[in-house]
Amino acid sequence: MAKRKVVRRKTPTPPASNTKSRVKLSPRDRKTMDALTGLADGVVRAATKRRDPHVDIPSRTLTNARYSSRKRIIEMGNKTNRRELFNLSQAKSYMQTMLVASGCKRLVEQGKTTSIRGLYYLLKHTIEGTKENTFDEQSDCDPVIEDTEVLLSSLREELHLYADKRGEMVGNITLTDSGDEIDCSRMGSGGYAVPSIVEPEVIQLDRKKCDAKFVLHVEKGTVWQRFNEDKFWKKHNCILTHGAGQPPRGVRRMLNRLHHELKLPVYCVLDNDPWGYYIYSVIKQGSINLAFESQRMAIPEAKFLGLRSIDMERCDLSSGVQIALNDTDRKRAKQIAAYPWFEKKRDWQREIQRMLKNDFKLEVEALISKDISYVTEVYVPERLKKRDWLD
Amino acid sequence: MAKRKVVRRKTPTPPASNTKSRVKLSPRDRKTMDALTGLADGVVRAATKRRDPHVDIPSRTLTNARYSSRKRIIEMGNKTNRRELFNLSQAKSYMQTMLVASGCKRLVEQGKTTSIRGLYYLLKHTIEGTKENTFDEQSDCDPVIEDTEVLLSSLREELHLYADKRGEMVGNITLTDSGDEIDCSRMGSGGYAVPSIVEPEVIQLDRKKCDAKFVLHVEKGTVWQRFNEDKFWKKHNCILTHGAGQPPRGVRRMLNRLHHELKLPVYCVLDNDPWGYYIYSVIKQGSINLAFESQRMAIPEAKFLGLRSIDMERCDLSSGVQIALNDTDRKRAKQIAAYPWFEKKRDWQREIQRMLKNDFKLEVEALISKDISYVTEVYVPERLKKRDWLD
Repeated sequence: MAKRKVVRRKTPTPPASNTKSRVKLSPRDRKTMDALTGLADGVVRAATKRRDPHVDIPSRTLTNARYSSRKRIIEMGNKTNRRELFNLSQAKSYMQTMLVASGCKRLVEQGKTTSIRGLYYLLKHTIEGTKENTFDEQSDCDPVIEDTEVLLSSLREELHLYADKRGEMVGNITLTDSGDEIDCSRMGSGGYAVPSIVEPEVIQLDRKKCDAKFVLHVEKGTVWQRFNEDKFWKKHNCILTHGAGQPPRGVRRMLNRLHHELKLPVYCVLDNDPWGYYIYSVIKQGSINLAFESQRMAIPEAKFLGLRSIDMERCDLSSGVQIALNDTDRKRAKQIAAYPWFEKKRDWQREIQRMLKNDFKLEVEALISKDISYVTEVYVPERLKKRDWLD
Repeated sequence: MAKRKVVRRKTPTPPASNTKSRVKLSPRDRKTMDALTGLADGVVRAATKRRDPHVDIPSRTLTNARYSSRKRIIEMGNKTNRRELFNLSQAKSYMQTMLVASGCKRLVEQGKTTSIRGLYYLLKHTIEGTKENTFDEQSDCDPVIEDTEVLLSSLREELHLYADKRGEMVGNITLTDSGDEIDCSRMGSGGYAVPSIVEPEVIQLDRKKCDAKFVLHVEKGTVWQRFNEDKFWKKHNCILTHGAGQPPRGVRRMLNRLHHELKLPVYCVLDNDPWGYYIYSVIKQGSINLAFESQRMAIPEAKFLGLRSIDMERCDLSSGVQIALNDTDRKRAKQIAAYPWFEKKRDWQREIQRMLKNDFKLEVEALISKDISYVTEVYVPERLKKRDWLD
């Protein structure tokens, strides 16, 4: 679709390394900047020694992820893939890696952040004298961003990139966000929209400003709304969060910080289906694809309150609320049961086998068939009181 | 998948009309309740007169929607569809309509709200002595909810139902949400998550607590974040909203109230593609499917700031940012150009023809190829200063 060939560098836009709006860097930004310039220095060093420049990028495959039973998180192994400039099949991705790094440097220098879509547009251009684009599609850029994260051991957020933002928070806590005091107990029916970047430079947590005794994390916004409307967090003195499905990085990192810095236990209320189990698994142990970030995202002590595959009988639900499992569900359930962190847990094996035997799944909303507020007034309080959860 | 047949009414759950938690009704709730009980009274009246009970439901088809060029909104016509109890092909939907109305009555009485998913579960049960479910799927229930809305001339929100919640708000306004004062100028990097239900019982707006002079509505959260990070709303004294794509009802109703009650002009920054045009169309004139709600949702004075199909040249963008139109895009563009409210506007015809001639679309994020903050520092301020928009 390139009708006209415009070379971006020749337009009167500011050059990539413009300094007009450089800002004072935070200690964390300085660290990220050191990593970024270190990468560039490596190229220069190789060139002056007349060696071929290359980078060794840690492998992000399943075979390079392993579960540490001591730390109880998924960690990344030591395997790396070499990417060389003077290698016809690797030159493009080598250049793309450098380009992403230079784009992130520009963001950090200017004290600005952008979405991964924004970075893609920032870096996309036709290479002078060719018809070749730096990136053709967003999907060309995304894996390179992840490569850069693992290469520099920097979270995406530290590279000033943000992911989609979803999820909200209310409860007995006051935090500081970019200098504004946010009292999460005075958010009305709305809620505080959890930012994508919740690193300490942006969000400050203070133990003295948190009365809440635990965090209740629910899967969906609609369920969250039921808990918020019933002021569950006020009655039970807690913080209430949701992640609109699989929680985005901002919410996961926020949960991690609430747990580790404020010592709050985290309880999850998710659907009784393989997807719900998987959400719990990611919150608890980290994700396989992004194993390198587990240490700052995972919460090995998180508990699974429900829904449980025994709830059909335990709560005496109407059969109408059952949703039949499909083949994908069955396959996913078996995969999840085989995860090393579930494999040796008898409770979890029993839970998953029971769901497979049921051959149906249950959404949290199914509890409404008992009563509109059954989930907030009976189900969750009972589980908490009896300390009845899966670990 | 119904393995056991459980009749919900026989379980020890509270009956549908339980009164344990009846609350004092607001004037609006009383009005909704009158409509709901009026519907039930109609059935009783017909029965005592030994006539066949029926309801006449306004038709929600395209042929029953018309554009009022005087009010500049899409309105619903007078066509109705009769639904009779003693008619084999209509009995089920007649019963479903009554069931939805009874579920909403229960919600209003208890002063609670739920999602459309929640209502589905609340009402789903196997009819005693049969294998028939009241609803088999969510998709059986959703159109009946819309029927009930038009039948009773009650917005979904007045029936205590909420849709998916998306979208955020920041800016120079303080509002009251369920008794909590929300200062939208002190939301940090996060933002106030706009609730699904923003009716005056929940959200109170006060002209004295609003310094903002206009509303800037952007399509996506990632773009919103750029504007928020650059404190656009502070520099330009405005309110900044987004709707995560097609704005949900809560955001549309909020924009409508900000416009009509606080007299704030609404400017939209959307992608230059048929979807962006359509979002603008819905914000401005209302949607065809839900024409009956236009009066309380539409903003005929809303302006379209961009992106424009002339922006490629006007902003001297790199060709790399173009995204080729596909057949669906071309078809949609022609449909939109033929909408009565665009049909007679020369500017809009030129705009859409130009996009078709370009044969590419442009996302707002494309402007980042000029500079990270080009959209907030140049593009939008210029358009506003020159009063350069489409109407």
